Amino acid sequence: MEKTLIFGHKNPDTDTICSALAYADLKKKLGVNAEAARLGTVSKETQFALDYFGVQAPELIETVGSDIKEVILVDHNEFQQSVDNIRDVRIAEVIDHHRIANFETKEPLSFRAEPVGCTATILNKIYKEKGVAVSKEIAGLLVSAIVSDSLLLKSPTCTKEDVDAAYELAELAGVNLETYGLEMLQAGADLSDKSVTDLLTMDAKEFSMGEAKVEIAQVNAVDTNAIYKFQDDIDTEIAQIIKDKELDLFLFVVTDILNNDSEVLALGSGKAKVEQAFDVSLDANNRALLKGVVSRKKQIVTALTDAFTK
Amino acid sequence: MEKTLIFGHKNPDTDTICSALAYADLKKKLGVNAEAARLGTVSKETQFALDYFGVQAPELIETVGSDIKEVILVDHNEFQQSVDNIRDVRIAEVIDHHRIANFETKEPLSFRAEPVGCTATILNKIYKEKGVAVSKEIAGLLVSAIVSDSLLLKSPTCTKEDVDAAYELAELAGVNLETYGLEMLQAGADLSDKSVTDLLTMDAKEFSMGEAKVEIAQVNAVDTNAIYKFQDDIDTEIAQIIKDKELDLFLFVVTDILNNDSEVLALGSGKAKVEQAFDVSLDANNRALLKGVVSRKKQIVTALTDAFTK
Repeated sequence: MEKTLIFGHKNPDTDTICSALAYADLKKKLGVNAEAARLGTVSKETQFALDYFGVQAPELIETVGSDIKEVILVDHNEFQQSVDNIRDVRIAEVIDHHRIANFETKEPLSFRAEPVGCTATILNKIYKEKGVAVSKEIAGLLVSAIVSDSLLLKSPTCTKEDVDAAYELAELAGVNLETYGLEMLQAGADLSDKSVTDLLTMDAKEFSMGEAKVEIAQVNAVDTNAIYKFQDDIDTEIAQIIKDKELDLFLFVVTDILNNDSEVLALGSGKAKVEQAFDVSLDANNRALLKGVVSRKKQIVTALTDAFTK
Repeated sequence: MEKTLIFGHKNPDTDTICSALAYADLKKKLGVNAEAARLGTVSKETQFALDYFGVQAPELIETVGSDIKEVILVDHNEFQQSVDNIRDVRIAEVIDHHRIANFETKEPLSFRAEPVGCTATILNKIYKEKGVAVSKEIAGLLVSAIVSDSLLLKSPTCTKEDVDAAYELAELAGVNLETYGLEMLQAGADLSDKSVTDLLTMDAKEFSMGEAKVEIAQVNAVDTNAIYKFQDDIDTEIAQIIKDKELDLFLFVVTDILNNDSEVLALGSGKAKVEQAFDVSLDANNRALLKGVVSRKKQIVTALTDAFTK
């Protein structure tokens, strides 16, 4: 029986991993020979969720093998965030909550994007539409994804649907949303064993904005200063990434999960666009505090795209 | 109250017009200040359906006005098929059944594409999901759209969902599907008053295939020879279009609605790709009969894209 592979984006976050696992679970229950996969390392935050609910991480893949009939993308659609040979495979379906860009198919497909805070929220709905019960483990994964993407329901990307789904799923999973959520976020914000390379790559995404090539890396932290004390090393490494990838801008976003602000570092020929986009001045270290900014998708990518295309 | 404008593609066909009207009807019933619009002339086939069910055509627009808060695209997503200022407006939603390409947004949106034969089939489902009854007039428009896109359920794009929806909607509309459907298709295939320009533009769509720019015009006919007796004029006019739009290929597809074949005419530097895509030889008049080919989307665009990107 031919296999359908389900995976999220590179540099997987909790929504990407948990949504791939959950949708594979649902597809299997619907009789499809589906399997989840991942395109990168499992983060500490995600591992906390997987361990808590006793679920194994999906298998790591580099490219889609020739034995795969078709793939389903969850939590992303932009090809540069997907598997390297995405243009050579048949995309049967997409379930996503991001903007749509740099995506194309030769044939019609199922594409379901909704402007909610988390792919898991859409999946929770699809379980209901298909009349399949969500197991305790899957509920745990889905609520973890919502906590992660919404920073415990505090991100501006979080909608009423996400909030309702989070409470409903927490109950199914047998956890207290606030207690479990904060524990999971703190597990993810433990950066003590990370190298500078880790910090800059563990949740980095590349975007095309007008003619510009922009990479935005984001980490959650409880103490932003603890990270910036290595700024010299960070600067050197970003300069190399910019050169290697011919980027116009690299934006490093350190999000304070307790105060819900972000301290950003902007390097590259396009760094003035950051000042323009957020109406701030970069200091002598090329840094600025973006008050109330926690969402790369809703607050950073949109404002920067505007600045680059205006 | 700010307005939401709903429209389908340029060179509107029956699915595009009827889906815009139906979705505006549903949105209004859900409390949205929605209005349907169209980006071109109403075809004879579509006019037949509108007259039959006593519905007025949507208003013609050239561009989206500044009073419009947001737009909803039905039956298309590729920007070159949409309104000229599509990049300057907020796209709130897309309902479509085509491949996805040349589409991008800055922000997340609702995007619902399903690989069915007709947008109207998806709309029929959305009425049910929202618990809104389909009126007799709207049922008439939706069944007309399905008949049109599926050539009375004969196109390879037609799925079981389309067939089921067509019979269900025909009953709601109070018509016999076969009798009404053939009457409507024949009204559309009456090309006696069309100029060569009309034939080449009334249902023409432009596509990017790899590096190539391709335009494909399709007309339904009961007698393909009646059209090709004007081939000299057709050739001259296509040559001009190729020059003006810098096309690599113009493919004119005359689909025989009684025999379900298409007689095509290929001009432009890329015309050999047609031979390659369909394993045929163009005759001295640059024409070939494509047996069993009736669907631009499923049979022509896919095969040609393959040929241009291989």
